[in-house]
Amino acid sequence: MNVPDITDTALAQRLQHKLDSKTKPLGSLGRLETLALQVGLILGTDAPVLEQPQMVVCAGDHGLAARGVSAYPSDVTWQMVHNFLAGGAAVSVLARQHGIALTVVDCGVRHDFTPQPGLLVRKIAPGTADSLAGPAMTRAQCEQAMANGHEVLRSLPGNAVLLGEMGIGNTSAASLIQARLCGLDIALCTGAGTGLDGAGVARKLAVLREVLAVHAAAKEPLDVLAAFGGFEVATLVGVVLQAARERRVIVVDGFIATAAVLVAQALAPHVLQRCVFAHASGERGHAAMLVHLGAQPLLSLGLRLGEGSGAALAWPLLQSACAVLREMASFDSAGVSQKA
Amino acid sequence: MNVPDITDTALAQRLQHKLDSKTKPLGSLGRLETLALQVGLILGTDAPVLEQPQMVVCAGDHGLAARGVSAYPSDVTWQMVHNFLAGGAAVSVLARQHGIALTVVDCGVRHDFTPQPGLLVRKIAPGTADSLAGPAMTRAQCEQAMANGHEVLRSLPGNAVLLGEMGIGNTSAASLIQARLCGLDIALCTGAGTGLDGAGVARKLAVLREVLAVHAAAKEPLDVLAAFGGFEVATLVGVVLQAARERRVIVVDGFIATAAVLVAQALAPHVLQRCVFAHASGERGHAAMLVHLGAQPLLSLGLRLGEGSGAALAWPLLQSACAVLREMASFDSAGVSQKA
Repeated sequence: MNVPDITDTALAQRLQHKLDSKTKPLGSLGRLETLALQVGLILGTDAPVLEQPQMVVCAGDHGLAARGVSAYPSDVTWQMVHNFLAGGAAVSVLARQHGIALTVVDCGVRHDFTPQPGLLVRKIAPGTADSLAGPAMTRAQCEQAMANGHEVLRSLPGNAVLLGEMGIGNTSAASLIQARLCGLDIALCTGAGTGLDGAGVARKLAVLREVLAVHAAAKEPLDVLAAFGGFEVATLVGVVLQAARERRVIVVDGFIATAAVLVAQALAPHVLQRCVFAHASGERGHAAMLVHLGAQPLLSLGLRLGEGSGAALAWPLLQSACAVLREMASFDSAGVSQKA
Repeated sequence: MNVPDITDTALAQRLQHKLDSKTKPLGSLGRLETLALQVGLILGTDAPVLEQPQMVVCAGDHGLAARGVSAYPSDVTWQMVHNFLAGGAAVSVLARQHGIALTVVDCGVRHDFTPQPGLLVRKIAPGTADSLAGPAMTRAQCEQAMANGHEVLRSLPGNAVLLGEMGIGNTSAASLIQARLCGLDIALCTGAGTGLDGAGVARKLAVLREVLAVHAAAKEPLDVLAAFGGFEVATLVGVVLQAARERRVIVVDGFIATAAVLVAQALAPHVLQRCVFAHASGERGHAAMLVHLGAQPLLSLGLRLGEGSGAALAWPLLQSACAVLREMASFDSAGVSQKA
């Protein structure tokens, strides 16, 4: 996967100089300044403007959900797709608040949707296969889902994409991907998901250990992705790779979205240059995932909802970072005295 | 100071029930949910709408600045007031981004401003007295500055106020207030401010130790405030008390604004119910201040600029919390299955 390195050191220096000349003590806007630097480098300008941000919520069902790894039934996936489109879900409310366009992609939901605005049907199958019995998807299905992600992203305008997802059972897929790609014990990667109690997490963990054993041979990123699923994760991997190629800003939500980035960066390490990590999720495993990626998230609010909700909540910080670069006065222009 | 307790347990239960019935796993919006609960309780409704938010930037100079406690000269205070009003400062940019009205109050800047829109001149004196030589302000000056804060707040519309400040030397005042009111060693309360190097911090610390010794007798909140200053801090104390009485939401910025809350809550503990702490500042001392107040800040971005910049950056999170309460569907209304 060809995602070129961004190595514009002249621009990086110009951005840093511009930030340092603004009317504030050096570095006093903290993380917002590194964010401004990153967004400027991605967009290739020292006066970045974020345009037509796109929230892409990829949805899919999981065969493994029948093994009782989630606190909610699989029907919640399609019901929530309706809720996203009707404007009543958290991500709908937050995207609306911030003027972020919302597109829901049916990557493989176990439900037939009637066509409607805001919904793209790119269904591979009505849910992945049970990964305890075999691969969640075939290699061909996995590649098709990724290709769908490329195509969906290309069809959307703007220079920033926010990653969202929905799929009952998908914390299991994300935990499995993390355990295998990061070489961590699955216990460190497995959490309560939508709200399992202690006994439920123990059952989930036992199932996931079995699944890992079944797919002991899966090591390469795409084999791992195909083994564990899901269709929404594979589609997100495609979205990430395509967005990175187009030098869009990629705003990464929580545990599932970060798992997609984990796969994408294993295929093309430079995608990380384009990723802004929105928040540290309350879901067990996410902190270790962020450490693995060397990522410093913007928010830490104990969120564990997914959908892209954390990405939407962080969005105004990206806008602020750009506004600081574009609109703040310099010491010279404002006639403010410098440090003695 | 009469700031009544908010003890509407029926509303608290209604808010919690409403949050729990929204289409999301229980508690999965984390800190945003406790924020929604708090804002609902302050505004006395389970469908809160934040109206006409007001950023009040209180500015003043400090006699102690002549002792070399800051990296910048005192002239930067009035120069930055011009910058705030011209729209080029960080707080100007961020307030504009979020539609927050910006009012700058000259509480005691060492400069004569020509009248202009957005500036309220409530000058007690051109800078406080040198607190190493005596009290920074007289008790009468302190009370007048607080009364100015009441009056300024009353003159502004809306149901939310964001606390901002500017004053070369005011991290010193805040450190002194913290050390005395919290009973902490001044070394734990003293940081680099606008950017002192190690030797500069050591000099500042030595000066602050002397100042504390001069005012060993100051123990009561208003005596402490008068001893150490500044006029902008005292005006902010008045703003906080008046806003709390009117049940406005108070968004607290960083080290200096929190020091004002420290004084206000020592006078009227229930002000804390109305305070939302925007961020954990990078300034040494702020973390301990937040612990003392039992405050859980929304952001932690290594900010150390003041002006109200952190409060403005956190503002969209308050709007999100209200939007979640008002606009998210419930499991019933959206036809989404509940947890098994």
